Amino acid sequence: MNIVCSKENLHSGIQIVSKAVPNRTTMSILECILLETDGSQVKLTANDMEIGIETKIDAQVIKEGKIALDAKLLAEIVRKLPDNDVTIEVKNDFITVITCEKAIFTIIGKSGSDFSSLPEVEKIDSIMISQLTLKEIIRQTIFSIGHDINNILMTGELFEITGDVLKVYSLDTHRISIRKVYLKNSYPNRKEVIPGKTLNEIMKILPGDADKDVTIFFTGKHVIFEFDNTMVISRLLEGEFFRTDQLLSRDYSTKISINKKVLQNCIDRAMLLIKEEDKKPIIMSISDEVMELKINSVIGSMNEDIEIEKQGQDLMIGFNPKYFIDALKVIDDEMVDIYMINPKSPCFIRDNDNNYVYVLMPVNFITVDGA
Amino acid sequence: MNIVCSKENLHSGIQIVSKAVPNRTTMSILECILLETDGSQVKLTANDMEIGIETKIDAQVIKEGKIALDAKLLAEIVRKLPDNDVTIEVKNDFITVITCEKAIFTIIGKSGSDFSSLPEVEKIDSIMISQLTLKEIIRQTIFSIGHDINNILMTGELFEITGDVLKVYSLDTHRISIRKVYLKNSYPNRKEVIPGKTLNEIMKILPGDADKDVTIFFTGKHVIFEFDNTMVISRLLEGEFFRTDQLLSRDYSTKISINKKVLQNCIDRAMLLIKEEDKKPIIMSISDEVMELKINSVIGSMNEDIEIEKQGQDLMIGFNPKYFIDALKVIDDEMVDIYMINPKSPCFIRDNDNNYVYVLMPVNFITVDGA
Repeated sequence: MNIVCSKENLHSGIQIVSKAVPNRTTMSILECILLETDGSQVKLTANDMEIGIETKIDAQVIKEGKIALDAKLLAEIVRKLPDNDVTIEVKNDFITVITCEKAIFTIIGKSGSDFSSLPEVEKIDSIMISQLTLKEIIRQTIFSIGHDINNILMTGELFEITGDVLKVYSLDTHRISIRKVYLKNSYPNRKEVIPGKTLNEIMKILPGDADKDVTIFFTGKHVIFEFDNTMVISRLLEGEFFRTDQLLSRDYSTKISINKKVLQNCIDRAMLLIKEEDKKPIIMSISDEVMELKINSVIGSMNEDIEIEKQGQDLMIGFNPKYFIDALKVIDDEMVDIYMINPKSPCFIRDNDNNYVYVLMPVNFITVDGA
Repeated sequence: MNIVCSKENLHSGIQIVSKAVPNRTTMSILECILLETDGSQVKLTANDMEIGIETKIDAQVIKEGKIALDAKLLAEIVRKLPDNDVTIEVKNDFITVITCEKAIFTIIGKSGSDFSSLPEVEKIDSIMISQLTLKEIIRQTIFSIGHDINNILMTGELFEITGDVLKVYSLDTHRISIRKVYLKNSYPNRKEVIPGKTLNEIMKILPGDADKDVTIFFTGKHVIFEFDNTMVISRLLEGEFFRTDQLLSRDYSTKISINKKVLQNCIDRAMLLIKEEDKKPIIMSISDEVMELKINSVIGSMNEDIEIEKQGQDLMIGFNPKYFIDALKVIDDEMVDIYMINPKSPCFIRDNDNNYVYVLMPVNFITVDGA
């Protein structure tokens, strides 16, 4: 192989596929990026056996071929090269010479044939969504996936397509996050569970352009994301996702409207007084026009009054402050509505059209606080 | 104690004195900042028994007094308060209430009387230097102090005052850094060794204003830095600093002039191929107009030609690339002159007026490289 490409293209291609290079593996070939000529382009591939990423960059192909190069070393070398054309030439015994201006690096690659290629799948069923929207709905839900591998479906997110509506669900044992977006086209109904790890990587490498689309193919066992010159393939999680309908009642006995930023800052301050391991709840005492927030810990105590608009009954209810902050952080509205029933029933943070619904289980502060 | 001050002043005061709060200590009072009213100001003090820092902020003093508050907790609380006036009121049993707008924190302090006060020293002999100059000369020399506590003088820097000239020296077993600056006034000759740790903290908290001065008092056993509303006190290191005169010969057999940035980038790239523990030298082959840089390691090899202007003999010489980079990083000149004698004698990077002199010991590449 002998190719010439710009440092910039090569660098950005490596950055994209590096997301599928495993940190620790016993198979050193997986720590490599495969470079392979493809017409007047070079295809870069990485594959950690869960996610595979492939991206193409423009290049002048002097001699066709392929080579697997250590991903970290290649990334570091390319990052430190001058901003100019880079030549990569493979000689006998996988000796690879990388030249840019007067700098000449010589490293040893591995046979491209040893690289585990990505699964071949038929691309038939697909949906289209803008890069920005996909990036946003992942960010707005990914924080509440579970991390218990014994409960594998919780480690993924449900993508539910109904006509032109895409709903994304994530949940762990304490909370549920749901986001709804409208697609440009209508599609047959479909429910698929995509691994959280895949979505996290997609979120990182998606440029997030509002005018450009991502095509998502579902192939039974796999999902493929295609955008720009990049393709990401991942296994789907098998099994039926948790049913949340019965939890999502619209009943409430107390509804408050509150300035989101004020509430978020207040809980953020309160969290200073809690250490990770210690499960102190934040206690909200809701009365007409005012909510008092209070936290008590071995470190000290904090309380703060926040103006609210209230409908319904007064209420005293406790929450894990981190879960509350997680949801508030990804809501862009200035004011949020919070719906509650009683100190033991789930609380809802949602807008009128259910474009977002964040469900939080309260914490039993009576026993925890000893009050 | 009962005081009101702006969040901004309090926050910046805490940031300054926090540099003297120890990370780990068995004496929990040392983890505190002492707040003490002083006329219409509040004095903040921290003391890790090696360095003490004191700074004053404007405040409305409602009731005089003092209190020691956990430094980390106080810093975090203040950082997260709204940008407004902060009230700190000490009640019975050192219960301290911090109020800002509607947020009320209650924490438990410690008796201000238990705090170890800073040593009282007479401020007589002093020199003046601009904040910017002091900050710069520390930055330009501190990287080459030693870290072996069995060789305690190497962990400090020599400040040598001769008339209106201040020379700062730092050295370890492989290199020497010397910077020279002119002071606005002349002072009696003096040599003092200031701990590197103190200088590191000074460098961090000095605003670095070119128009404002730092007064440095030497009191036999201590050094005091005074600037703005802040005072830093530290012990001096006792003993005579290493004599470097005989090393600083001006003889050379090879002199090269080279573009600093080009050389720095080239060595930076070469360092990709070395792991920390592995002591591979970078080898420079100097001939007329060109210097070839070369490195060989288990990871791969790199070579690169750089244009130079040469006087004297051709030379092949090896260096620890990190030491070379450390010196180049803090030189602002576009072109640097490098003076060498032979592959075993010290090499000098210096300007014509000796405003900077960086001395590096070469590495014996013949045995290391097996060439």
